[in-house]
Amino acid sequence: MYNMIQNGTIASPRGFTAGAAAAGIKYTDRLDLAVLCSEQPATAAGVFTRNPVRSAPVLLSARRIQRGTAMAVVANAGCANACTGARGLKDAETMTSLVAKRFGLSPEDVLVASTGVIGTYMPLDRISTGIESIQPDTSRGHDFAQAIMTTDTTCKEAAIHIASPEGQFTIGAAAKGSGMIHPNMGTLLCFVSTDAVVEPAFLRTALSRCVDRTFNMVSVDGDTSPSDTVLVFANGLAGNQPFDDTNGAPFEEALQHVCEYLAKAVAADGEGATKLLEVLVTGARTEEDARIAARTVASSMLVKCAIHGADPNWGRVICAAGRSGALIEPHVISMTLCGVPVMSEGMPVLFDHVSLRSLLAEAHVSIGVHLALGDGCATAWGCDLSHDYVTINASYTT
Amino acid sequence: MYNMIQNGTIASPRGFTAGAAAAGIKYTDRLDLAVLCSEQPATAAGVFTRNPVRSAPVLLSARRIQRGTAMAVVANAGCANACTGARGLKDAETMTSLVAKRFGLSPEDVLVASTGVIGTYMPLDRISTGIESIQPDTSRGHDFAQAIMTTDTTCKEAAIHIASPEGQFTIGAAAKGSGMIHPNMGTLLCFVSTDAVVEPAFLRTALSRCVDRTFNMVSVDGDTSPSDTVLVFANGLAGNQPFDDTNGAPFEEALQHVCEYLAKAVAADGEGATKLLEVLVTGARTEEDARIAARTVASSMLVKCAIHGADPNWGRVICAAGRSGALIEPHVISMTLCGVPVMSEGMPVLFDHVSLRSLLAEAHVSIGVHLALGDGCATAWGCDLSHDYVTINASYTT
Repeated sequence: MYNMIQNGTIASPRGFTAGAAAAGIKYTDRLDLAVLCSEQPATAAGVFTRNPVRSAPVLLSARRIQRGTAMAVVANAGCANACTGARGLKDAETMTSLVAKRFGLSPEDVLVASTGVIGTYMPLDRISTGIESIQPDTSRGHDFAQAIMTTDTTCKEAAIHIASPEGQFTIGAAAKGSGMIHPNMGTLLCFVSTDAVVEPAFLRTALSRCVDRTFNMVSVDGDTSPSDTVLVFANGLAGNQPFDDTNGAPFEEALQHVCEYLAKAVAADGEGATKLLEVLVTGARTEEDARIAARTVASSMLVKCAIHGADPNWGRVICAAGRSGALIEPHVISMTLCGVPVMSEGMPVLFDHVSLRSLLAEAHVSIGVHLALGDGCATAWGCDLSHDYVTINASYTT
Repeated sequence: MYNMIQNGTIASPRGFTAGAAAAGIKYTDRLDLAVLCSEQPATAAGVFTRNPVRSAPVLLSARRIQRGTAMAVVANAGCANACTGARGLKDAETMTSLVAKRFGLSPEDVLVASTGVIGTYMPLDRISTGIESIQPDTSRGHDFAQAIMTTDTTCKEAAIHIASPEGQFTIGAAAKGSGMIHPNMGTLLCFVSTDAVVEPAFLRTALSRCVDRTFNMVSVDGDTSPSDTVLVFANGLAGNQPFDDTNGAPFEEALQHVCEYLAKAVAADGEGATKLLEVLVTGARTEEDARIAARTVASSMLVKCAIHGADPNWGRVICAAGRSGALIEPHVISMTLCGVPVMSEGMPVLFDHVSLRSLLAEAHVSIGVHLALGDGCATAWGCDLSHDYVTINASYTT
């Protein structure tokens, strides 16, 4: 159904260019500053962190995107520009002004997103030199995805081509994740480009729904970040009938497909992660109950440790579901680990430990919880908790 | 004010005896089954897990304690008897009947608490043999505290003697903690004995308040257990004027002192912990806001990792406070790490990294967060997140 573009990037849709520079913001000799440009004004929508501690770039971009259009975004790793007060906000504005000047745009048309250490100021001199050196073109989308990585070990990007009755269009995207990743927000940074023509209100609601079902169902460590931002740019060059509430299903499905692909990549590449954990909750009283139960199981430290050790310790799963706030009745719950029944209607089920342990040792582990109270279902993605998570986060700033 | 009794135990108050056995429930050659007896009926109160997944011992003890009196409790490690359905409930009742028969009590006067693996059945034959072998006396209180340990590395017990105008009395207690420890409950297992005369309704409310300010402010890993139980037995042998709402302050303060001592011991001995973390939130809009902010900071995986690495990464603290649900206004928050200001009214404060890192490397680390919105304040206790936590929990059942 979806035509995944080989080596597709955020610059794959028509009319988008991208580029990056090694500005030396925190590390040297590493791409850490990136720009995405649209050749014509794009309908734009965004989802931002719900943590009241919001970085300066989040405050600025959330305000500017209310206009509904944008032409560029500048993003950086190494410095989150959060907890930096009025000076931080001015620095974020300066970053957009530098980009606007360099590419002949209005500052109001430029958005900004930053990730990295909290409580340090942006090194504007290096940012300025870096922006001067960036030469966006259609072949440098991969550089963009690389530049936004922090402790990510994999570059997260994708592009798909869709041929729908409403016309052909392309969606590209790049994301970064790794730490401070948890539901109830648009996770760290994700940028989506598309040449589709999309009606602005529909773009906003479609993005919001897609983020709720994808990025908001990912957890690496339960901690939410002040920087989380998902931005979508639809520049309309595909020339399709505008997608709206009546005909937009193909676009929203494609957008969700890309978001889910990247959300799973973020979970699988959580800091220190060695495997992807998928938690499917069914039979919840409501969809919201299913969501909170799935997210709580996927973010339980004890569940994550057990998955790391391939230990079929299913008691931790039911305890996490129990404390999630979802309505549960322990005596009717059934559960599977990697498809193997371990609990049935509240009671232990005998299983072969050796064979289940070998399934739990694989790179993709699934947990199925059936609450048997209704029709609500939801999927959450997480990862295991390893020694490397501790190592990475015991010395992040120093 | 409080006279801490040297080598005091749960059997220090008059009229209490305790004993334990190595029943071989999960491990061999290790005390894992314990009994506490009062020589006369004691006023009793309990606080139990709020996780809807409740173990059979919790279900049974919560029902029996409604009578307000009890004479004994049997406790074990190695098997939680949770998610074991009707058979588990029958097994818990059998445990109390075996104790009742052995010591000439009514089963209704015997409570039960179990900790250990979830989803396995109690080995009743070994329990029965173990109970037969237990010889409670006043010198074996330490055995009781040892027998309830699972992954605890320290034995948690205390006894204090109080001389108040209402009379002299003694409080003894034993607790176990380690994993699946998180606020919003009475944490794992704690047993309190006292010879004070306490009016039943006052005992219940005093215990509830004390647990809210002590055990409910401890977090090791954010996971709540189906077994959590705090029980207090007041057998009245001290012969004081009965403590009630009008004169009970000395008793409640002493009870809180013992609970806080054990709660901090539980936090400091969290699975894999190398240090105790104390989080004091002041200036919150309400006390409840202060409580949730303190608890969220103390249980943040990223904060715990930073503390483990002695990394002064205060951005993680404000982010955790931000997502806690407490009302916060980032631009007025001030913060200290080990007493050193790192943030003032929302902005970074320059500090000496080398000297702060050496403070953060000590065995007791404090975080102070001033929200500057009101008078609410609260303290929470936690621990760092180490490689050993992962090691312990990657292979708990296997």
